[in-house]
Amino acid sequence: MYYIGVDVGGTTIKVGLVSEDGRILHSSRGRTPVKEGCDEIVNKIQSLINEVIEGYGAVKGDVKAIGLGIPGVANKEGFVYFATNLFMKDFPLGKNLENATGIKVFIENDATVAAVAEYVKGASSGTQNSIFLTLGTGLGGGLIIDGKVYSGSHGIGTEMGHMVIGENFYDCNCGNNGCWETFSSATAMIKYCQRLLEEDQRSLVYNKVEGDLKEISAKLIFDCYQEGDSIAKEVVERMVQYLAKGIGNLINIFDPEVIVLGGGVAGGGHLFLDMLKEEIQKYIYLKSMNLTEIALAQLGNDAGIIGGSMYAKLRLEESGV
Amino acid sequence: MYYIGVDVGGTTIKVGLVSEDGRILHSSRGRTPVKEGCDEIVNKIQSLINEVIEGYGAVKGDVKAIGLGIPGVANKEGFVYFATNLFMKDFPLGKNLENATGIKVFIENDATVAAVAEYVKGASSGTQNSIFLTLGTGLGGGLIIDGKVYSGSHGIGTEMGHMVIGENFYDCNCGNNGCWETFSSATAMIKYCQRLLEEDQRSLVYNKVEGDLKEISAKLIFDCYQEGDSIAKEVVERMVQYLAKGIGNLINIFDPEVIVLGGGVAGGGHLFLDMLKEEIQKYIYLKSMNLTEIALAQLGNDAGIIGGSMYAKLRLEESGV
Repeated sequence: MYYIGVDVGGTTIKVGLVSEDGRILHSSRGRTPVKEGCDEIVNKIQSLINEVIEGYGAVKGDVKAIGLGIPGVANKEGFVYFATNLFMKDFPLGKNLENATGIKVFIENDATVAAVAEYVKGASSGTQNSIFLTLGTGLGGGLIIDGKVYSGSHGIGTEMGHMVIGENFYDCNCGNNGCWETFSSATAMIKYCQRLLEEDQRSLVYNKVEGDLKEISAKLIFDCYQEGDSIAKEVVERMVQYLAKGIGNLINIFDPEVIVLGGGVAGGGHLFLDMLKEEIQKYIYLKSMNLTEIALAQLGNDAGIIGGSMYAKLRLEESGV
Repeated sequence: MYYIGVDVGGTTIKVGLVSEDGRILHSSRGRTPVKEGCDEIVNKIQSLINEVIEGYGAVKGDVKAIGLGIPGVANKEGFVYFATNLFMKDFPLGKNLENATGIKVFIENDATVAAVAEYVKGASSGTQNSIFLTLGTGLGGGLIIDGKVYSGSHGIGTEMGHMVIGENFYDCNCGNNGCWETFSSATAMIKYCQRLLEEDQRSLVYNKVEGDLKEISAKLIFDCYQEGDSIAKEVVERMVQYLAKGIGNLINIFDPEVIVLGGGVAGGGHLFLDMLKEEIQKYIYLKSMNLTEIALAQLGNDAGIIGGSMYAKLRLEESGV
C-alpha cells in the first residue's frame, strides 16, 4: 500500500507516491494555477495524483490516503481558513479533493508537514518531542508531542512566528509589534539590512545590489557575511540573537529533545549554528541542564512530499484505521 | 482504593487521603521543617501520611500511590533538581519517601499539580488541552495536552514565567531581562508600584503603607485600584497588558481550549478579567477565531492535595498499572 504526499506552494505543486516507510517512489510537479481559482487548484492536484499513480503502474485502490501541506491554516476536516499565497479563504479543499479522487485526504500547515518529515526520517527521527521551525519569508512552526502531531485544539496552533519576544522597528503583517518572525526570518534580515544601509552605504551588500536595496536577499547577506562585511555581520548576529531568545522560550516551555531548523535562512545555518547554540544557553532557565539538541533539517526539497504522505499515515493510524 | 495528595510548601505541608474521583476524605497539615533538612521533610511527610490513613480508618494497602506537588523542579523519577523555598537541591525525594512508606511516589511542580486538579474537577474539566498559570510571587505554568500531563522530555518544561516577552526595568532572578514573570506576577506589581511611588507619592497605596514601600502587596494594590487610585490603576493595567501578551503567545502556539488563572494575583481576577480578555484579542494571530476560554481557578486551597493525588492516578494509569 502507498500514500500520496502533496506540497502545495504558491508557485509549484509537487506530488509524490510514497511507500509505507517514507520513500518517494514516483513524483511529479506542475505550476500552481492561483489565478484560475481554487477549483482549478483542486483539478491540478487531482491530475498530478493520477499521473504519479499511473506513472508508477499502481492503481487508486493501492493508495491509503493523501496528505497535503499548504502555506496556510486548515482544520482537522481539511477546511482551509486561509492560504494567502494560494488566494484561498474558507475553502473546503479536503472535501473537494476527496470527492474528486475518492481517497481520504488530510491537510496541514506546511511547517507541521515538514516537522513530520523530519520526525519520520530526518533530524528528529527517534525522538518523542520535537519542534520544527521554518525560517523563510516568515517563521513557521510544527510540533511533535509524544510521537504525535500537535496542531492545537482547533488546528490553529503552532504559530510560533507570532510569539511576541520584544519590540521592533517595524510592525508584523499580523498587526502586532515584536513578533518573532519580524526578527528572525529572511524578511526580517532584509528589512534590518535595508535600514542599516539607508544610514551607511559602506557595505559589500550595497555594492553588490548596486544601490538597489529591493534586491537584497538573505542569501546575499550570508554571502557578504562570509566575506567579512561588517553590516552583514550585524544583520546575521541580530537575527541569531533573537532566534536564540525565541528558541530559549520554546525550550523553557516544551523541554523538547530536539529543535530542527529548516527553510531558506537555515540554509546559512552552518555559518551561525555554533553562535546560536552559545546564545541559547543564556536563555535556558535551568542553565545546568542544556539538554535540547539544535539541528539543521535534513530533507530539503523532499520534505513536503514525504511529510504530507507520512502525516496522512499518522492520522490514519491515530484514527485506528 | 485511595490516593494520597501532598502539597509541600515552604511554610506548610498539607496531606490528604483522596478517593478515586478526587474527593478529599481526610486531611492534615503541619509545619515544613525546612531548617531541619531534607530528611526531616521526608519524616514529616511520612508521619502526616500515616495520620490521614489511620485517621480515616484505612490501611496502607488501600493506598495506590502518593502524588506530591513541590515548589521546584523534579524529574519523572521523583529526583528533585531544586526547590529553593525547601532548601532542597539534587535530592532523591521520591525514592526516599517510597522507602519510608512502601508506597509508589510521583512528584511534580506545584503549578502542574494545580493544572491536574483543575483538569480533573475544576475550570478545565472536560477539556483535552489546557494551560494552568499560577500568578503569585513568580509565574508558573502547567500543561495538559491530549488529556495527559506534559512536563517536557526531561521533566523541566512548562517554565512559562521565563518566556521573554519584552524589555523590563529590572532583571529576573534567572539572570535574564524581559521574563514574563517580571511583568505579570505579584512581585512584578509590587516592584512597578514601588517605582512609581518613588517618583510620585500622591497615592492611596503610599498612604496606606505610611510611606513604607516594603509593605506593599498585590492585594493592597487591588484594594486601592477598587477605590479608584490612579497609581494602582496604572500598575494593574500594566500587569494585565503583559499578561495578555504572554497569554496571546501561548494561544498562538498551543491553541488550547481553556487557560486557567490561579494564584494570589488571580484572586483579583474578577476586577480585571474583562479587561484581560479584551487585551488578549489584540494578540491572537487568527483574530476571527478567538476560541480559547480564559477562566479563573475553582479549587483554591485544596488544589494541591487534589492535584497531587490525581497526578499520581494519571501517572499510574499511563504506566498501565
